[in-house]
Amino acid sequence: MSEVHAARRTRLRDRCQASGSASALVSRPANVRYLTGTAPQGAVLLLGRTEDLLLCPGPPDDRTDGRPDETLCVQTLRGPAGDPAVAAADLAAGQRADSLAVEEHHLTVARHRAIRSVVPRLRLADLGCAVEQLRVVKDEEEISCLRIGAEIADQALGELLESILVGRTERHLALELERRLVDHGADGPAFPTSVATGPNSGRRAHRPTDRRVEEGDFLSVCLGATYRGYRCEIGRTFVIGTSPAGWQIELYDLVFAAQRAGRESLAPGAAYRDVDRAARQVLDSAGYGEGLPVLTGHGVGLEIDEDPQLAPAAMGKLDACVPVTVEPGVHLPGRGGVRIDDTLVVRPEADGGPELLTITTKELLAL
Amino acid sequence: MSEVHAARRTRLRDRCQASGSASALVSRPANVRYLTGTAPQGAVLLLGRTEDLLLCPGPPDDRTDGRPDETLCVQTLRGPAGDPAVAAADLAAGQRADSLAVEEHHLTVARHRAIRSVVPRLRLADLGCAVEQLRVVKDEEEISCLRIGAEIADQALGELLESILVGRTERHLALELERRLVDHGADGPAFPTSVATGPNSGRRAHRPTDRRVEEGDFLSVCLGATYRGYRCEIGRTFVIGTSPAGWQIELYDLVFAAQRAGRESLAPGAAYRDVDRAARQVLDSAGYGEGLPVLTGHGVGLEIDEDPQLAPAAMGKLDACVPVTVEPGVHLPGRGGVRIDDTLVVRPEADGGPELLTITTKELLAL
Repeated sequence: MSEVHAARRTRLRDRCQASGSASALVSRPANVRYLTGTAPQGAVLLLGRTEDLLLCPGPPDDRTDGRPDETLCVQTLRGPAGDPAVAAADLAAGQRADSLAVEEHHLTVARHRAIRSVVPRLRLADLGCAVEQLRVVKDEEEISCLRIGAEIADQALGELLESILVGRTERHLALELERRLVDHGADGPAFPTSVATGPNSGRRAHRPTDRRVEEGDFLSVCLGATYRGYRCEIGRTFVIGTSPAGWQIELYDLVFAAQRAGRESLAPGAAYRDVDRAARQVLDSAGYGEGLPVLTGHGVGLEIDEDPQLAPAAMGKLDACVPVTVEPGVHLPGRGGVRIDDTLVVRPEADGGPELLTITTKELLAL
Repeated sequence: MSEVHAARRTRLRDRCQASGSASALVSRPANVRYLTGTAPQGAVLLLGRTEDLLLCPGPPDDRTDGRPDETLCVQTLRGPAGDPAVAAADLAAGQRADSLAVEEHHLTVARHRAIRSVVPRLRLADLGCAVEQLRVVKDEEEISCLRIGAEIADQALGELLESILVGRTERHLALELERRLVDHGADGPAFPTSVATGPNSGRRAHRPTDRRVEEGDFLSVCLGATYRGYRCEIGRTFVIGTSPAGWQIELYDLVFAAQRAGRESLAPGAAYRDVDRAARQVLDSAGYGEGLPVLTGHGVGLEIDEDPQLAPAAMGKLDACVPVTVEPGVHLPGRGGVRIDDTLVVRPEADGGPELLTITTKELLAL
């Protein structure tokens, strides 16, 4: 794996040099992990003129943070040695860099100022989202971690569906799902598990309450596993009891159609906004245009909410090997609603089109 | 409660005005919550010249984020309206402020730059850690939330001790503790629950692995509950089996003595570093000075790791009504170790001295 990380650093270095900075300071944890294989708390990566260095405030712990790339020099700051970002800038100056690109969207004003005061002659440039952009297209190793995470989430969800649900609270169901994720080998949940019943169902990122599952409820569940740092997402909506009401079937079919339209529009070269529009217009033309979430989906990877954003104003086009969620939903205040959420990998049609990672059925199950 | 939040904002306003800024922008989530009673994701507080305003990227949800103070004006940004911090700065300029104090230790360089470009004539000053300083001394309402949180953590831990432990993994025990916290009314765990067995025992913030509890192990557990936003912490070490080994008893007694020395030195007016030294020198004089954690304890409140820090180089003195942890520990690589961690509130001797919130026994239990 260490060649993978070294190759990623080389690509980033090429980008930096093209924009006039011989060295860069990476501080955003997911970016540090992407480029080094590990991200101990507070660690920063110096992409130096002559040498790359991972600076950690304490000794890295490979059991919990992943193993740092062997081609990388790791330096542990001892005691109250201050901010690793400042130490890194100082080292960059020592390597005779005249300019250092920093992640201005992550570095605070106070840290930026501290760097300037310690190494005033170093020109500070903006690295922007260069690492986030590198992260958008995944390699097969990364996709394989997402695939395993999705299998784990499917298993956890499948087991829950076999148990008795009526009378249990949203909070308990969410905790049980998280336990099952870990049982099946996840590092942990990819984000706080959402279980929403009755009038709460269909709300995006609903935080579980003490409401109990009742006959006739919609039950919507959204969960994901983290596997080797990679985070996936699945969301499904069920109905509790023997037969769904007419409005429930109608709403479900509508959201299902919207989600399918989104999925089917995933292809290399498709504009982000067109994927969003494909799903959104199904809901819009049925009169649910108001109050829809701002996103139809988003990228996933080392973070659960990465680029790209599938939204009306998003700029850009999908590439092959970009994993995204497609997750339209409708929530009717006071009544509840439906969300259906899959993680898929964009693939060319010649390879069979989008690869569905979360394979739990999307039929409307009555539980 | 709303008068409480309004009074806190008045105190902050007085501080700002004393340092020459008529308005302030608070962006750090725990600080926003402290001053308003709520902190929806991405929300910022504008402490304006004429009016205070909570700016939210989406509608606040009082079931999950707490209820915003009624004396406060809440404004929801619709659609992709951009950064609430930029919108707040724009409003400050509209209220004819000529200077705005921002949290430079939280605001990123990119956001700071965006504010400057939208309202170039507004002078940006540094609010520093003014809100964090206000947060150090707690009122009785806040302490009561911590007390309830500590009771919940004690209950969860007590129940675990009654169950069979041998053969279960660290990860399962941690998940079970978290479930019990929620069962007993916690909002959730205050931080990732740590369960460490055998050679892992005694490590600070150890992340649970698949190692199973064995006869003869030390078992160290650290958990906490969040209750109405307030986070407490308790840590205990047990021994598994009928009779602890000699080295286990010796090490336990030593860490217990260090922890007691730290607890007994808590008093209004005591220097942070003296509390640290009281605990540290017990371990140091027994030959464990190397490899000790950098902290003996820290403040708790809306965040689990707040000011003050009880550490060798910390500057400052304790006040009454400051809740802190006292948590020395020793970890012997390959063998394991002991941590003992309490949350206490500093009280004057006339009021009975430090108030212990986490009351689970600190006798060495053989389970």
